[in-house]
Amino acid sequence: MPHVKDTHRIETRDLDMPPRLLLGPGPSNAHPRVLRALSNRQVGHLDPRFIELMNEVQSLLRYAWQTDNPVTIPVSGTGSAAMEAAVANCVEPGDSMLIGVNGYFGERMVDMAGRYGAVVTRMETPWGTSVDLDTIRRHMEACRPRVLGLVHAETSTGARQPLEGVRALCDEFDCLLLLDTVTSLGGVELFIDDWGVDAAYSGTQKCLSCPPGLGPLTLGPRVLERLEKRSKPVPNWYLDMSLVGKYWGSSRTYHHTAPINMNYGLREALRLVAEEGLEERWKRHRNTAERFWAGLADIGLSCHVRQDIRLSSLTTVRVPDGVDSGAVARTLLNEYNIEIAGGLGQLAGKVWRVGLMGFNSRAENVTLLLAAMEDVLKR
Amino acid sequence: MPHVKDTHRIETRDLDMPPRLLLGPGPSNAHPRVLRALSNRQVGHLDPRFIELMNEVQSLLRYAWQTDNPVTIPVSGTGSAAMEAAVANCVEPGDSMLIGVNGYFGERMVDMAGRYGAVVTRMETPWGTSVDLDTIRRHMEACRPRVLGLVHAETSTGARQPLEGVRALCDEFDCLLLLDTVTSLGGVELFIDDWGVDAAYSGTQKCLSCPPGLGPLTLGPRVLERLEKRSKPVPNWYLDMSLVGKYWGSSRTYHHTAPINMNYGLREALRLVAEEGLEERWKRHRNTAERFWAGLADIGLSCHVRQDIRLSSLTTVRVPDGVDSGAVARTLLNEYNIEIAGGLGQLAGKVWRVGLMGFNSRAENVTLLLAAMEDVLKR
Repeated sequence: MPHVKDTHRIETRDLDMPPRLLLGPGPSNAHPRVLRALSNRQVGHLDPRFIELMNEVQSLLRYAWQTDNPVTIPVSGTGSAAMEAAVANCVEPGDSMLIGVNGYFGERMVDMAGRYGAVVTRMETPWGTSVDLDTIRRHMEACRPRVLGLVHAETSTGARQPLEGVRALCDEFDCLLLLDTVTSLGGVELFIDDWGVDAAYSGTQKCLSCPPGLGPLTLGPRVLERLEKRSKPVPNWYLDMSLVGKYWGSSRTYHHTAPINMNYGLREALRLVAEEGLEERWKRHRNTAERFWAGLADIGLSCHVRQDIRLSSLTTVRVPDGVDSGAVARTLLNEYNIEIAGGLGQLAGKVWRVGLMGFNSRAENVTLLLAAMEDVLKR
Repeated sequence: MPHVKDTHRIETRDLDMPPRLLLGPGPSNAHPRVLRALSNRQVGHLDPRFIELMNEVQSLLRYAWQTDNPVTIPVSGTGSAAMEAAVANCVEPGDSMLIGVNGYFGERMVDMAGRYGAVVTRMETPWGTSVDLDTIRRHMEACRPRVLGLVHAETSTGARQPLEGVRALCDEFDCLLLLDTVTSLGGVELFIDDWGVDAAYSGTQKCLSCPPGLGPLTLGPRVLERLEKRSKPVPNWYLDMSLVGKYWGSSRTYHHTAPINMNYGLREALRLVAEEGLEERWKRHRNTAERFWAGLADIGLSCHVRQDIRLSSLTTVRVPDGVDSGAVARTLLNEYNIEIAGGLGQLAGKVWRVGLMGFNSRAENVTLLLAAMEDVLKR
């Protein structure tokens, strides 16, 4: 037997993280009840009590998304895994797919769809805007998509994509509607069934206030029908919903071992949504955001996205001329324990991204952040 | 705006799980220090303090695996995701891949490799045995593999695959060696670098005694070299290590949001490994298992796997003729709060699977389980 080497046997201290207030684009701070739930003692993933919990999580996710879709589950990965699951299970090689690209996550959808063999048409608008119905129609007429991918809440820009009229268009072209709801689920008005969305995904660490590690996913009947008719299996074993769906469905066929404790946390986060009620929760996010927007104007700052399509969960704040956006964010972190983020891509250096999500969507956080930003900008 | 429906807004109780002793093939019970670490307050995934933690996790994983591989990370999914990551990043379409199939996880590797376009040759031996060097050579001569996939610790059978001589064969055929170490990492002798393993994966919920939700993965220089030379990107965005490696590496390029709290837990689990030391930990697993095997003989039960290749982390116990294995497992769960599992595939109904892993590898658990089994079998 070889000899054990101690090269990487490093000394470490007890875990002790600083008390950050997470007001960036996510993760947001988890609700204290969620953090407590995480450390509950474990049961096996096939234990009758865990199966009961899986059913509760699925029901509460359906409530949060306003859908009756039987396949409504947390993928055992982060929101990015749920995104890939949506793409992999909707797209077959050679499918035409039309994607709205007005931010980082639209770009990422293009990358993923290409890996699954889609022939992608990009529908570009400037970062911070949304795509209008006429533009979608024009592109659909040209590329006849089998799948239309839109980002409901662009985490990179803070813009909301209106969905009115999109389902009718998809029906006309016999097209699936795939929607990114990472930064809207649990914070912003969202109606999967009424809007006719066929596939949607999200993360747990935004408006649900649960730590990252699970990726909510919902697939409607049109997706399941295509899945059944595929000539070849989904080229991704871990995210093949014809297998994962059976694990979460009534047959409970073993596929992988679900993240037990993360599901404890998500259950608690979804209970908090059900206790508060969606209308109240959406209203709270809206009120907190409006308070923030008004306060920004008071200290001479402005928003990048026009108000009618501005997300209440995430605001992009324009960086004044001559200000180093990264330096401000670092000072807020180091001196105030407040995390906000800078812009990505087209918006790098031009905006800060401020999330007021879930548990963090509260008046006192707005007051603190505005006062701290004012202090730092005055220096 | 549509009206919010309360169809799925179910009433739920406060989370309260029964005090199970998890002695099946995993998850095992997490160490109490790991459970406490999970609920530590969050920081952002790009916070300097989290980046420090990522470095610690990587170092401690290298110690546990006995490797210097720079790419040694927890994949943000379960062990199955890490398995798929290993396959997806080693295999290119059209590659010949030879796979040892002597249990459920060898079978699964065949399924996954096929989805990534490998031309798979199955090397089958009965469930509960291992593959010998001559058999591997004979198959390699016939199929000239670019990748050889073996299961070091078959979670479905309790058999250990000896690795002596395998690297020399792989060198002779210029072949990557991919190894499943799900049920061995942190419990059974394992030397990634000394054995010349090119890619290995594991789970956190076995001998590391951390809840499921992360999938340790290590990739050696030969894999990275092939990854760099690929003509097309890995057809899986979430698990493409040319992207994920940059997120965990020195450039910290954003890819996805790492599961913050699960990484707190894994760090604590790996600290416990480093505190105990690998030799001590392996010895403890061995001692506990030998105590169990002796006790089984005392109550007239026998092991399915011959002793020299029997895993100390997982034992398959033969079900006596006329005994309903499922009924025994259910009674142990319902009356004693002890979870053990039945067999899979070829071994369904023929064995129980008993895991004595990580924190659970202790004398008192052996004593309790043997006494409870004896009671139930006497009925």
